[in-house]
Amino acid sequence: MKPIERLRALDAESKLLEHIGAALGWDQETYMPSGAIEERADQLAFIEALAHEKATAPEIGDLLGALGSTGENPGGPESLPTIDRAYLRVLRRKYDQATKLPVELVSELAKATSLSQAAWAEARKNDDFKAFEPYLTKMLGYQKRVAACLAPDAKPYDTLLDQYEEGATEAQIASVFGALRTDLVLLLDKIRGRPQIDDSFLRRRSPVDGQAKASEYLMKVLSYDTSRGRLDTTAHPFTTTLGGSDVRITTRYDEDFFPSSVFSTIHETGHALYELGIDPSPEYRRTSLAEASSMAVHESQSRLWENTVGRSLGFWLQHLPMLKQTLSPVLDGVGLEDFYRAVNRVEPSLVRVEADEVTYGLHVILRFELEGRLLSGDLAVSDLPAAWNEGMRRLLGVVPPDDASGCLQDIHWAIGLFGYFPSYALGNLYGAQWWDAMKAQGLDPKEAVELGDLGSILSWLRTNVHKPGAMYKPGELVERVTGSPLDPSHFVRYLNDKYAGVYGF
Amino acid sequence: MKPIERLRALDAESKLLEHIGAALGWDQETYMPSGAIEERADQLAFIEALAHEKATAPEIGDLLGALGSTGENPGGPESLPTIDRAYLRVLRRKYDQATKLPVELVSELAKATSLSQAAWAEARKNDDFKAFEPYLTKMLGYQKRVAACLAPDAKPYDTLLDQYEEGATEAQIASVFGALRTDLVLLLDKIRGRPQIDDSFLRRRSPVDGQAKASEYLMKVLSYDTSRGRLDTTAHPFTTTLGGSDVRITTRYDEDFFPSSVFSTIHETGHALYELGIDPSPEYRRTSLAEASSMAVHESQSRLWENTVGRSLGFWLQHLPMLKQTLSPVLDGVGLEDFYRAVNRVEPSLVRVEADEVTYGLHVILRFELEGRLLSGDLAVSDLPAAWNEGMRRLLGVVPPDDASGCLQDIHWAIGLFGYFPSYALGNLYGAQWWDAMKAQGLDPKEAVELGDLGSILSWLRTNVHKPGAMYKPGELVERVTGSPLDPSHFVRYLNDKYAGVYGF
Repeated sequence: MKPIERLRALDAESKLLEHIGAALGWDQETYMPSGAIEERADQLAFIEALAHEKATAPEIGDLLGALGSTGENPGGPESLPTIDRAYLRVLRRKYDQATKLPVELVSELAKATSLSQAAWAEARKNDDFKAFEPYLTKMLGYQKRVAACLAPDAKPYDTLLDQYEEGATEAQIASVFGALRTDLVLLLDKIRGRPQIDDSFLRRRSPVDGQAKASEYLMKVLSYDTSRGRLDTTAHPFTTTLGGSDVRITTRYDEDFFPSSVFSTIHETGHALYELGIDPSPEYRRTSLAEASSMAVHESQSRLWENTVGRSLGFWLQHLPMLKQTLSPVLDGVGLEDFYRAVNRVEPSLVRVEADEVTYGLHVILRFELEGRLLSGDLAVSDLPAAWNEGMRRLLGVVPPDDASGCLQDIHWAIGLFGYFPSYALGNLYGAQWWDAMKAQGLDPKEAVELGDLGSILSWLRTNVHKPGAMYKPGELVERVTGSPLDPSHFVRYLNDKYAGVYGF
Repeated sequence: MKPIERLRALDAESKLLEHIGAALGWDQETYMPSGAIEERADQLAFIEALAHEKATAPEIGDLLGALGSTGENPGGPESLPTIDRAYLRVLRRKYDQATKLPVELVSELAKATSLSQAAWAEARKNDDFKAFEPYLTKMLGYQKRVAACLAPDAKPYDTLLDQYEEGATEAQIASVFGALRTDLVLLLDKIRGRPQIDDSFLRRRSPVDGQAKASEYLMKVLSYDTSRGRLDTTAHPFTTTLGGSDVRITTRYDEDFFPSSVFSTIHETGHALYELGIDPSPEYRRTSLAEASSMAVHESQSRLWENTVGRSLGFWLQHLPMLKQTLSPVLDGVGLEDFYRAVNRVEPSLVRVEADEVTYGLHVILRFELEGRLLSGDLAVSDLPAAWNEGMRRLLGVVPPDDASGCLQDIHWAIGLFGYFPSYALGNLYGAQWWDAMKAQGLDPKEAVELGDLGSILSWLRTNVHKPGAMYKPGELVERVTGSPLDPSHFVRYLNDKYAGVYGF
């Protein structure tokens, strides 16, 4: 077996374990009886330990070395085929990340994370930041140690950001977010000057059955192939990959707010389409190339379908009749324009996951600023609640009445995810840039949506974004596909155009 | 760590893998999208290979040896605690079975089995025994090789029987089945002399929803704890163990024959109660002691609940009102006695899995006789169809019109399960013997059922049968619990008493 083939074979075992873990995780969230939780945790830990063993096998390091892949030149010699070089780069990165962390740190971290998550849940329930503070301090400390192991000479936050958005730095994201923040605040001000939209009909009682039918319809309309995926119900919607031909999504049904399931289903379908669209050729299949370019690029897919397509007038021109029929009589008497405006209502609020397209980015920017300061030591953990509240006032003009709906609202920091938040907002920026690239390349996506032709949009995304998987770093991908680096102006222009219409200014 | 503790730790890893495999298998049968089948097969093969590696680790052999466990004296020295001796016996058996088969044979067999299963499905569809004959010949050859590896000096069929019913031999089962056959044929003759029962109302159309509610009710009545299990729908009902606190069952709904789901659910609940009732103490938890004593003892649990309890007059005295209400109006005008007689109708038929309590044993005895002759060489594979049809005529008085409903009806031989069939009939015998032991020990199970007190029956079974798990070989278990070896007269007396009432003779 040639070294590169042997690498692919070893990698395939890691992928199998990853998919098996995903199957166990999916079951845990959907159908597992409650009494099985402890055993399931042990099963998952066992699979994770095996996966870690596989991922750190010295044979991988030897093979990478034999093929000329090094930390400085992860892709190896230029004489290798492009796809092999990309593969070596991805594997080298994974191998180094996995082997640079001492086993004791990994195991300590797993235990601390589990304790911290429980403490966070309790603290949020009791609105008691003080009780959570020591855990957060600990998680911050662990993430600094992780960063120091991965890249001793780099700024810790840069190293952590790079885990989710390869090649990104705090400075670069700060520059992008700086421009974005100014424009979002300006737009929000304009919207605040206009009469608010009535969206009360979105809260009419709507039974689960009808919502479930609507979800199935939407999955079909978006070409989600249910012979390679499925929809189930969970407390928090997610997408999970159990195999190249098994990517499942979940949604949640709120009988008092049907848009929750409608847009969750579209959002998760967007994630699933990405995973299902990755090149199925043997060089990709069950290798680390068959992954997203980055978390932000993943988010660009979910949010493009949810917002750019799913909250557009053209989309509901096509599909509101179905929704009205399926949810009947909930939307009786509601016109297309009313519906469109209602699902695009902008209102600064306390909670990120419920935020509209305009304010969402501001929530993320606040977290980015705060986690950067926490990591640099510029902000003490004990001062986080005050800094959070001040940031909310400054960016969104609202102040949380308590920490539960303030700095305790998200699970991310509690489980050590520092550097993850920016992906959510970067996803919007990538999405808008893909959209403009379609136009530049002769496809009119807005018109396609109006004509009910979602296939040509999906086809463009498949070719340009899905198929290459992890072949390109996100920064490379956006340059290759759109001809320029990530640029927030696409998103800002999109929002301004859209909301000028929605709010009439 | 003491050697016995180290053994338990190694065993626990095998158990985890077994449970993970069960989770993947359950998902495959219930919710997995169809396109994922190929990847799932690879995931399962990967888990099985890992499990085989763990089960055959030389360290296990070394530890067993160090503790004094040998092939001749698997439990080790008598100075060891009873539970440790039982554990060593079980592990020694597993370890020897796993290590005595050459890896090449295991892998060849896996491939051949998969091909044979496909060939069988095709042959059954086309009613073409000739097409299946070479595969069956091959599977028979493989099982002879397996038997030769496991016990070179024993009769192959004895070795294969021992895999499912430890300690059983062909001669011993032949003696039990010989007596049973005579009595079943006599009873069947008596029944044939009586007017047939009208059970046409069992075929009234009954929607899935009502049947599903009845199944949930029955699970509850039988004390199946759904925080440690659940019910789903599959083509073929089964029970599967995903963990000591996660034992799931499935059923199937036939809108034109509701008893199919009613009795499948009770049957599988019986299996689940056994698994859930095994001692949860640390010496059992996630070890090979936390298993059934044998397949037949397992079947004794499912069939006791399905037939002895579930097809009794007392049971429906309690629960027919619920069923009538849940399936309403399907059973309008049907009285208790009519219902009881209908679900106990006896009619010789072609298919084992649809057989009643009286003829079921005859189906199994036929297979036992035929597989014994196939393995001894007394019957050529090419002569199987004729021998099958002749046996059916002799034992049941019916002759299959084709091989599809004759010797091709069961999957067992196609996948190499020679020696498994007897368990099905032995289960009935164990069940009747448990029932009589309850009476001898002062519990009147019939009265308990009539009073709706199923708890005292379950409690007796838990203490005597479930809790010990694999502590005792089936032959030891029945002697310990009932004071005598397996004796078919309990079952025969039970059937004669019951059917004298049902058919009035």
